[in-house]
Amino acid sequence: MRVPQRILLGPGPSTVDPRVLRAMATPLVGHLDPVFLEIMNEVMQDLRYVFGTENQLTFPMSGTGSAGMETVLVNLLEPGDHALICVNGVFGTRMCDIAERAGARVTRVDAPWGAPIDPADVKAVLERERVDLVAIVHAETSTGVLQPLEEIARMVREHGALFVVDAVTSLGGVAVDVDKRLIDACYSGTQKCLSCPPGLSPVTFGPRAEERLARRKRKVQSWYLDVTMISQYWGAERFYHHTAPISMMYALHEALQIVKEEGLEKREERHRTISRLFCEGLADLGLEPLVPEAYRSPMLITVKVPDGVDEARVRRFILNRFNIEIGGGLGDLKGKVWRVGLMGSSCTENNVILVLEALRQALEAERK
Amino acid sequence: MRVPQRILLGPGPSTVDPRVLRAMATPLVGHLDPVFLEIMNEVMQDLRYVFGTENQLTFPMSGTGSAGMETVLVNLLEPGDHALICVNGVFGTRMCDIAERAGARVTRVDAPWGAPIDPADVKAVLERERVDLVAIVHAETSTGVLQPLEEIARMVREHGALFVVDAVTSLGGVAVDVDKRLIDACYSGTQKCLSCPPGLSPVTFGPRAEERLARRKRKVQSWYLDVTMISQYWGAERFYHHTAPISMMYALHEALQIVKEEGLEKREERHRTISRLFCEGLADLGLEPLVPEAYRSPMLITVKVPDGVDEARVRRFILNRFNIEIGGGLGDLKGKVWRVGLMGSSCTENNVILVLEALRQALEAERK
Repeated sequence: MRVPQRILLGPGPSTVDPRVLRAMATPLVGHLDPVFLEIMNEVMQDLRYVFGTENQLTFPMSGTGSAGMETVLVNLLEPGDHALICVNGVFGTRMCDIAERAGARVTRVDAPWGAPIDPADVKAVLERERVDLVAIVHAETSTGVLQPLEEIARMVREHGALFVVDAVTSLGGVAVDVDKRLIDACYSGTQKCLSCPPGLSPVTFGPRAEERLARRKRKVQSWYLDVTMISQYWGAERFYHHTAPISMMYALHEALQIVKEEGLEKREERHRTISRLFCEGLADLGLEPLVPEAYRSPMLITVKVPDGVDEARVRRFILNRFNIEIGGGLGDLKGKVWRVGLMGSSCTENNVILVLEALRQALEAERK
Repeated sequence: MRVPQRILLGPGPSTVDPRVLRAMATPLVGHLDPVFLEIMNEVMQDLRYVFGTENQLTFPMSGTGSAGMETVLVNLLEPGDHALICVNGVFGTRMCDIAERAGARVTRVDAPWGAPIDPADVKAVLERERVDLVAIVHAETSTGVLQPLEEIARMVREHGALFVVDAVTSLGGVAVDVDKRLIDACYSGTQKCLSCPPGLSPVTFGPRAEERLARRKRKVQSWYLDVTMISQYWGAERFYHHTAPISMMYALHEALQIVKEEGLEKREERHRTISRLFCEGLADLGLEPLVPEAYRSPMLITVKVPDGVDEARVRRFILNRFNIEIGGGLGDLKGKVWRVGLMGSSCTENNVILVLEALRQALEAERK
């Protein structure tokens, strides 16, 4: 197996620190070994720190970010429940699909791809009908929009619904602040701003979400993602559910140490500073971010593809010539944007210098 | 993170070869990188070899063995379908739970824990009523029974039902022979006889299962485990579904090389020889396997706990004194057996010598 050394500036995975790679190569212990149970405790504690929560039910699910999305929705929804889902990109769309598969009635609140959700639109639905759950994406990986949460969170709480936030791309990059922002359930992925390989999905459930779990009338449709069962493995009972992905847990444990050593505030500042640097460089190249600065996610910047430029050819050029991966557009934005991730360990000044120069040369090649 | 060097002789994970650990520590590439797509192709090809199949739809799901179980059942069952599930341990029981959550009507065929399923019992149900799917566990990890499959497979095919086999613990240890044995869908885990860390679940779907997928009236209840969507990522389309667990795929790729280098036949012979050696040693200690030789799975041996012996204290003694992990009983067998895994890289003569001596000393300590 021969693998080139890529600089990962796409929508994830981001660059994984050698410390995390080394941790992952640690010989395995059993998933019920006392040593492993201690590692699980530390991972839970550290996840509470990055989520900004005191929630007991905070642990990584044994799947990627989408498994976390499904976990939160299928545990908190039952057939006939009414979910209000905010859609301004691929991941909001995916939430609708999952909620419908769980038998929920879904009302969509849409915004154009590249714009944030308007709280007034959410309010209109909440005032019109009873809603059980409101779900929204914090940083939309398909568009690069960072969604303001506070106003919507307050409205959702006032109307007695559960507030669910997708923090796949934001966690470890900007503050998620689960408790402060009145978020009832939240999920993330490991391969974005936590800079751990993909394969785990940290989730957290607050007291109101726990209460909803306890009130369920029927079993969660997924056995594998049944949080009540899984919490007995992560809790004091240590009851066997499924074999935890041990090596991935080693990796997450080390990745979380790195986040703690830097500190969440400094980490957010770094993401904001480096991202600004990148956007300034874009302007010098005559390129433009899709999202206005006010709503632009610092960790994932969508860049408009200029007319007459073949976006896929540019990505291939950058990958083959410079070993740099950037992403293409998805869904409505396919062919229209590049997605440049500056997430976690990938978020460095050196990487900005390299990707700007790579873009410059690629555009020059396009003009020939 | 300080982790002791354990000798893993429990029900999984088994010892992971340093080559696999090193592969897992390889720097990441993107999940749509041409280099990664090539690795995916090789993994699919090598999985076909270990499953003994030509099935196109053969790939690892992004979850542990139980995710594979759920994948097969929720994709092949729709509400109202009739599933016949063979139950002689924890994993058969789990299949019933999952099939019921998928809305299927479940008929159980039971055998005592420690005995195989009697084909006559399956036949009786098949002749009495229409059955859509029959599911059975090849090697029951909770009891150590290796189930003969041929006779049941033929009956299932004659009656036009789909034949589903759980090969979590058997794959890479004894022949699974998916095509030869008329298995329509099969799933496994990586942390047993493949000796790869837990986190992926290889699955395979044959032509009759594919045909059933195509005939579905409603969406699969799980988005994350929707095989039709996932096959578009693993197939020629390379359509993005979720971010594959890249490092785990590196590990599986390397683990499969090791299996191929040894060859499946030699590997099965090794498991059978080493297992026999262990059982001979047990007899010298006055210990007895739960399962008669004819149905005993070579990779996982359940050993009866003698009267007056504290089984948990014995396991703790062996773990703390010798760094050897063996498993306790589950469900009906809790407190009554130890489970000794001799799987993949853990299946060596040296490990047999060590675990027998550890058991000898532990029993001596118990007698004091």
